[in-house]
Amino acid sequence: MLDISVPRLRTSDPQFTREFDEYLRATLEDDQIIQDQVRDIIRAVCKNGDQAVLDFTEQFDGLRADSIAKLRVDQNELREYWQSLSVEEQGMLKLAEERIRTYHEKQLAVIAQRESIQPLHSDSSGNQLSQLERPLERVGLYIPGGTAAYPSTVLMTAVVAKVAGVEELIATVPTPDNERNPLVFAALQFCGVDQVFTIGGAQAVAALAYGTESIPRVDKIVGPGNVFVSEAKAQVVRNVGIDAIAGPSEILIVADGSVNSRVVALDLLSQAEHDSRSRVILVATSESTLDEVERDINQILSNLPRREIATEALEKQSAMILVNDLAEATKISNAIAPEHLELAISEPEALLPDIRNAGAIFVGGHSGEVLGDYLAGPSHVLPTSGTARFSSPLGVHDFLKRSSVIQLSKQGAAELGQVAAEFAENEGLHAHALAAIARTPNP
Amino acid sequence: MLDISVPRLRTSDPQFTREFDEYLRATLEDDQIIQDQVRDIIRAVCKNGDQAVLDFTEQFDGLRADSIAKLRVDQNELREYWQSLSVEEQGMLKLAEERIRTYHEKQLAVIAQRESIQPLHSDSSGNQLSQLERPLERVGLYIPGGTAAYPSTVLMTAVVAKVAGVEELIATVPTPDNERNPLVFAALQFCGVDQVFTIGGAQAVAALAYGTESIPRVDKIVGPGNVFVSEAKAQVVRNVGIDAIAGPSEILIVADGSVNSRVVALDLLSQAEHDSRSRVILVATSESTLDEVERDINQILSNLPRREIATEALEKQSAMILVNDLAEATKISNAIAPEHLELAISEPEALLPDIRNAGAIFVGGHSGEVLGDYLAGPSHVLPTSGTARFSSPLGVHDFLKRSSVIQLSKQGAAELGQVAAEFAENEGLHAHALAAIARTPNP
Repeated sequence: MLDISVPRLRTSDPQFTREFDEYLRATLEDDQIIQDQVRDIIRAVCKNGDQAVLDFTEQFDGLRADSIAKLRVDQNELREYWQSLSVEEQGMLKLAEERIRTYHEKQLAVIAQRESIQPLHSDSSGNQLSQLERPLERVGLYIPGGTAAYPSTVLMTAVVAKVAGVEELIATVPTPDNERNPLVFAALQFCGVDQVFTIGGAQAVAALAYGTESIPRVDKIVGPGNVFVSEAKAQVVRNVGIDAIAGPSEILIVADGSVNSRVVALDLLSQAEHDSRSRVILVATSESTLDEVERDINQILSNLPRREIATEALEKQSAMILVNDLAEATKISNAIAPEHLELAISEPEALLPDIRNAGAIFVGGHSGEVLGDYLAGPSHVLPTSGTARFSSPLGVHDFLKRSSVIQLSKQGAAELGQVAAEFAENEGLHAHALAAIARTPNP
Repeated sequence: MLDISVPRLRTSDPQFTREFDEYLRATLEDDQIIQDQVRDIIRAVCKNGDQAVLDFTEQFDGLRADSIAKLRVDQNELREYWQSLSVEEQGMLKLAEERIRTYHEKQLAVIAQRESIQPLHSDSSGNQLSQLERPLERVGLYIPGGTAAYPSTVLMTAVVAKVAGVEELIATVPTPDNERNPLVFAALQFCGVDQVFTIGGAQAVAALAYGTESIPRVDKIVGPGNVFVSEAKAQVVRNVGIDAIAGPSEILIVADGSVNSRVVALDLLSQAEHDSRSRVILVATSESTLDEVERDINQILSNLPRREIATEALEKQSAMILVNDLAEATKISNAIAPEHLELAISEPEALLPDIRNAGAIFVGGHSGEVLGDYLAGPSHVLPTSGTARFSSPLGVHDFLKRSSVIQLSKQGAAELGQVAAEFAENEGLHAHALAAIARTPNP
């Protein structure tokens, strides 16, 4: 059994506010070196297209190819990956796909009426205002590879895009040293992804954002990646849609002692084993709950293959916070705006209305984050690093866009033209005023 | 009468595809100098807070104050601005506010059921999946000032946020040399904006994104600005929501000769007079339409106060494109993805289903862009520079966020736990597998 300890804070401590503020601020600094490296990679891909992508793929992934065509995995090959799976593996992907699809079909039903033109408002002058809602045409899926090759991420991005009606999906999956995870490629085939390239990093983001001779430019790039991928997404934001700029994964569990401490410990460790930069926070109403969970963490950790990663995450980025009551716990959770929030308490539904900021909320002890990671239904691509304050889980919304449609009658234009001309004159825009007056009866 | 000519392209020309591609690519280059300047301003505001904002406001706006409190316009003062308006001016703002509010209330009705928790899917095992939809808490409005002080932008941002249910609005309005536009401040009062600061530029964006001693940190920043503001928004994108990174304004008009050429010329000039970097494109099915509009542009231009700005925009960034038919016109428009698209043709509705990418579509000759700019209803904050490929007009959507809510039953967790454990083992995540198995009957 190990003896690691997670930094502990107590709201009753007079220093708490200061300590908690410091903890909140301890996010990642801008890294100028990574920024500059990524800028150079993007510029090279813009300038040299395919050749730059080939060079960086050799340099970073140790994967040498003399044309992008050789880094493209065609549909026949993808089908072979699917056929190579066991019945159990196929069943696992099928079940997850079905659950993710069903959830997002219901999500779509709330917002779109499956009509491309939605009339919104018409007035007595005969003016008609509508919006034209359409799926994006071509979307890029960034699927992490290497040590973090997750077939689940294929499902959690591709299925959502398909439900929204995206016509064409282009996936990039880095395969360092040419090691391919068969389940990832099988999932790409199963989800009907149109083109797959074994490239990754900032060079893949740049290729999708700007297009090269062989890699088509997309309208939006979604999916998580490492710091280089996140930085590249931030840098191409003027030219292509992006879902979010992912930081390390996070979980916050609120516990009142009613859920088995080993289960709480396992859920915390699930997050900690992802990445040494993961953030794991336990907020509990009693010191004994914190002690019990910490004891169980130590017990389980000693047998975990990824214990070094988890230990670093627990000791450096994590916290156990003792609160007086659940109202305090809610306040702390709202301030952190965690990617994953678990309510491991006896009456979780009572707390729900007070939760303001969280990517996904897991209600009650049965709802382990791990089930949401793979197949509960909602996408596991969630806002990290406090961005749940203003952003949402990946959803069909991310793959739809609207145009406003303004159709004015002769009478309506005449009425509005008078007032528009007043606005324009006030703003010193003379051509605007003339264009408005041109719609009135006495131009 | 002037004699300026707008660059002309013809789809029948063998060079057309190449020329058009070049035209499409002629977007703004990354400007390293502006990037570095903006980075320094943001870092200074993060480090020195109020004092940095005061220093930059003195440096860039010639407005000296020894505390942010003196750059804050309080509610009494705002009320005085409203009371100082004439009845006509008040009526103009009231009419626009009402139309904008009504449109966005209808837009909200399509997507949200005014319930904070929306049940989406429940299955036979008793699992319940929902989403929690909420407005953002605090939003920053960037209102341009100086030469481009637009009261309409106050309405087109504040009213949309209010309809969505945002609790608190903080506006920044630069007032170079302390010149204030009374209508802007009156509109801020009329829309119920909570706090107003007379600051602008990258320093205002940084202050809203990170907060200072006196300026509260917001969850999202919306509203257009100059190149410094746009660059600053791009740089803070990890820490705060942003609506879009605005480029120069654009219009594309499709004309078949059925709408008066002077009206078409005025609508093109309205866009051209905004900014010398504005882009104005006329796509017509006959050479004579292009000639007539060009003639009228020259005629009107000679009397325009902002003719120098408009001339530069017309000669340098603009184009007249001759097409064989409306199908070609649609293809060109979709490739450009204009901010504003006017269908100045005899049967505009027939073309609507083929329009894929556009911020706002103005249907028919009565629907002048200028009426949409001020009071038709939809927000005039629209995607520029081809970003209508993947983004939408500012709408209530921009002020709402969702959390996924996953509530599993004991039986449901047991069923899903088995499959989740398979996924986790495949992905090499041992703690995930244990956490999944812990939910099954025989952990």
